[in-house]
Amino acid sequence: MNFSDHRLLIANRGEIAVRIIHAAQALGIRTLAVCSEADKLSLPATLADEVMVIGPARADQSYLKAELILEAAKQMNATAIHPGYGFLSENADFAQAVVDAGLIFVGPDAHTIRQMGDKACARTTAQAAGIPVVPGSDGEIDSLEGAIAAAQTVGFPLLIKASAGGGGRGIRIARDANELAKEFIIAQSEAKAAFGSGAVYLERFIEKARHIEVQILGDGEHSIHLYERECSLQRRRQKVFEEAPSPALSSTIREQLCQKAAKLAQALHYKGAGTLEFLYDDTSEAFFFIEMNTRIQVEHPVTEAITGVDLVQWMIKVALGESLSIQQDDITINGSAIEMRINAENPAKGFFPSPGRLTHLQWPVGEGIRIDTHLFDGYLIPPYYDSLLAKVIIHGQTRQQAFERAITALNETQIEGVLTTMPLHKALLQDPAIKTADFDTGTLEVWLPENLHKLIEKEKDDALTTH
Amino acid sequence: MNFSDHRLLIANRGEIAVRIIHAAQALGIRTLAVCSEADKLSLPATLADEVMVIGPARADQSYLKAELILEAAKQMNATAIHPGYGFLSENADFAQAVVDAGLIFVGPDAHTIRQMGDKACARTTAQAAGIPVVPGSDGEIDSLEGAIAAAQTVGFPLLIKASAGGGGRGIRIARDANELAKEFIIAQSEAKAAFGSGAVYLERFIEKARHIEVQILGDGEHSIHLYERECSLQRRRQKVFEEAPSPALSSTIREQLCQKAAKLAQALHYKGAGTLEFLYDDTSEAFFFIEMNTRIQVEHPVTEAITGVDLVQWMIKVALGESLSIQQDDITINGSAIEMRINAENPAKGFFPSPGRLTHLQWPVGEGIRIDTHLFDGYLIPPYYDSLLAKVIIHGQTRQQAFERAITALNETQIEGVLTTMPLHKALLQDPAIKTADFDTGTLEVWLPENLHKLIEKEKDDALTTH
Repeated sequence: MNFSDHRLLIANRGEIAVRIIHAAQALGIRTLAVCSEADKLSLPATLADEVMVIGPARADQSYLKAELILEAAKQMNATAIHPGYGFLSENADFAQAVVDAGLIFVGPDAHTIRQMGDKACARTTAQAAGIPVVPGSDGEIDSLEGAIAAAQTVGFPLLIKASAGGGGRGIRIARDANELAKEFIIAQSEAKAAFGSGAVYLERFIEKARHIEVQILGDGEHSIHLYERECSLQRRRQKVFEEAPSPALSSTIREQLCQKAAKLAQALHYKGAGTLEFLYDDTSEAFFFIEMNTRIQVEHPVTEAITGVDLVQWMIKVALGESLSIQQDDITINGSAIEMRINAENPAKGFFPSPGRLTHLQWPVGEGIRIDTHLFDGYLIPPYYDSLLAKVIIHGQTRQQAFERAITALNETQIEGVLTTMPLHKALLQDPAIKTADFDTGTLEVWLPENLHKLIEKEKDDALTTH
Repeated sequence: MNFSDHRLLIANRGEIAVRIIHAAQALGIRTLAVCSEADKLSLPATLADEVMVIGPARADQSYLKAELILEAAKQMNATAIHPGYGFLSENADFAQAVVDAGLIFVGPDAHTIRQMGDKACARTTAQAAGIPVVPGSDGEIDSLEGAIAAAQTVGFPLLIKASAGGGGRGIRIARDANELAKEFIIAQSEAKAAFGSGAVYLERFIEKARHIEVQILGDGEHSIHLYERECSLQRRRQKVFEEAPSPALSSTIREQLCQKAAKLAQALHYKGAGTLEFLYDDTSEAFFFIEMNTRIQVEHPVTEAITGVDLVQWMIKVALGESLSIQQDDITINGSAIEMRINAENPAKGFFPSPGRLTHLQWPVGEGIRIDTHLFDGYLIPPYYDSLLAKVIIHGQTRQQAFERAITALNETQIEGVLTTMPLHKALLQDPAIKTADFDTGTLEVWLPENLHKLIEKEKDDALTTH
């Protein structure tokens, strides 16, 4: 298919804007960047074939403003819009507005974004496709009798969650009926005191769960999966370190999980790249659907590394009408890949953002190294957006080889002028538990307070000796 | 299980309130009626063990007012609430409020009502369960090129529907690409003129479709289907005449359709009685999910007639915690049943409601006849509610026998003082196309203008000769 008549507007910034520009240019598509005043001198603005400033620095006055993006698309004669991740990427109204403006939205249709973006609907949909969801009381519980009855289907251990709570607040754990009897009363009165409402619900507590997600790709007619990613290492529910494949899955469970995900994508006539997120319980080998992301994800490169499939190019190609020529059988896992998110944050100060000007930048080179970034030497990192600076993706024939290559790569990386999360990644790569993949979604929350002091001290020493 | 400690409030009126009172009383449950001022002397108010007037005649000030129902439940010490059909029966907030008040809601949980009540989510959910939905463009189409591309997946013949339309307005049909090219432009400008927006979408036109629906029943743990009902005879999308089983399905298609419905109910851990509605295309033997009703339906008795299962009793029993002891294999189809909805309407005046006082009432008796009604001799039919007076349900060993019995039954029925739809049903029972089941959802719209004059004349003659 010849795409040279197309003009793709990238409605995003940072590393993903660079990634999309690269993918589009390789397909012979003209790229149109839009940016805020703060991003006028950014790398995507430089790399794109054309660029337009659409608004002030603040995202809610630029990248989040659909009408500005659409107006720019009109003025620049765009034929298609890629939303990247974040910003408007999962906004169904935006996806519809793009289509209404006679343009192509690179992603699933508005209907799918809306339905799968609604957590409750996504849960019901997954259930209908025969995919397990975290057992819950599916409604509020008002009496101890009700709680005891509901616990029979929910199962122990379980969480008693305040309906008005959120972000981990107002949660009590009960491991058996006796604990439930005790904790339920406490949970109710706590919820009442904290949120003004004593309404609570029950949810099975998946202890020591891993976060595992399956990549899917479809052209609206047929869909495939591209195996899973392991994203258990998280800080405050933000992914820090990802890998593919998951070191925790047996090949039987892997096939089962991935095939179910692909079957759901197929049933939905899914178009574009998407991810189904699961909690996985090592002990019982049970997995539970949590939610679906109907866009490209930050951590997609680890999947590209092990499968050889260019996900962003395929997103663009299927959006422009090309059929997915890859069959499920074409997808095999080649080695192991990890991704480290390098953020402009100060680990010593609770990972507080650390914007500023880069005074020196040098990336590692060599076998199995991929860097996705919008940085350049002298770049002024603006304070208005998220703090992701770069993704260091390392591919090896084995997980161990990837880890070894990663240590060398990070040691050769030089980012000066701002503080970054590099020290954290160096420490993680050498931690025995991380190296043996003995972790879950709670691991980093415990690990960080225990190790942070140490790694900050070490970084200081390094700074003293090397500069 | 002993239900004698329970006190069931019936949050409804008319024939379904009577039906629920009968079912509950047979289980030894005390029944609590709530009614409007206009229904103080109604049959449910008389039959229930206790009654409370909750508000004025207008439904939005009585039966539709959740807080009045809940206050009555509190004052009457209800332990459970059955919502019937219509009114609050598919209101998820009400279902949740009932549970929050510490009472049992007779029906699925609020979550399921909300998800399956959302048409778009229900469609996505059905798709995920492998149930076909009517192919559509899943989003608005703005250009002829877009329409031609979308038509390839939607398929011909197709409908071009105005997004802002509804109730059959703003729809054009295209049978091939040439017609699409012509009709699309017209549809767009018509939509623009009629609704101020030219936005349209495409949907496959299922011609001469039948309306077929599958009854499901679950206890939250396991679910079964109770085969299908055929409800194609409709006037302005209101069902007029229903039957079970459908005379149109082969046993292969029947098993396929019903098993898929049961599988979905199972995946949703469905609790209570529910119905999945489908369009069925005789020619291609294809069925397409339309929507789900998460409540008991008006036409449930035809299913009860052919399966012997008391759906309303089971709804109550599973809500009160009893497990569904019926297995799928226990459900077999015994003969054929039809239901005629007798409404207080004047066929000669466009089926305009005809309330008033009954001066004489006599129901037919005999083999295979069931009457569900709230009428009694001398009853003053109030003008505030829907016009359903009674359902005449006739069961036979064959469809032909059911029809024969029905003719006799209607001839023996005497409802005087108000005009009813009885003449319509008498004519339908003797129509060759209806007798041979040669109809679809559009049949009655054509049949009525052709036959109405005739049957009104006949009724006048009958009146002259018999009185």
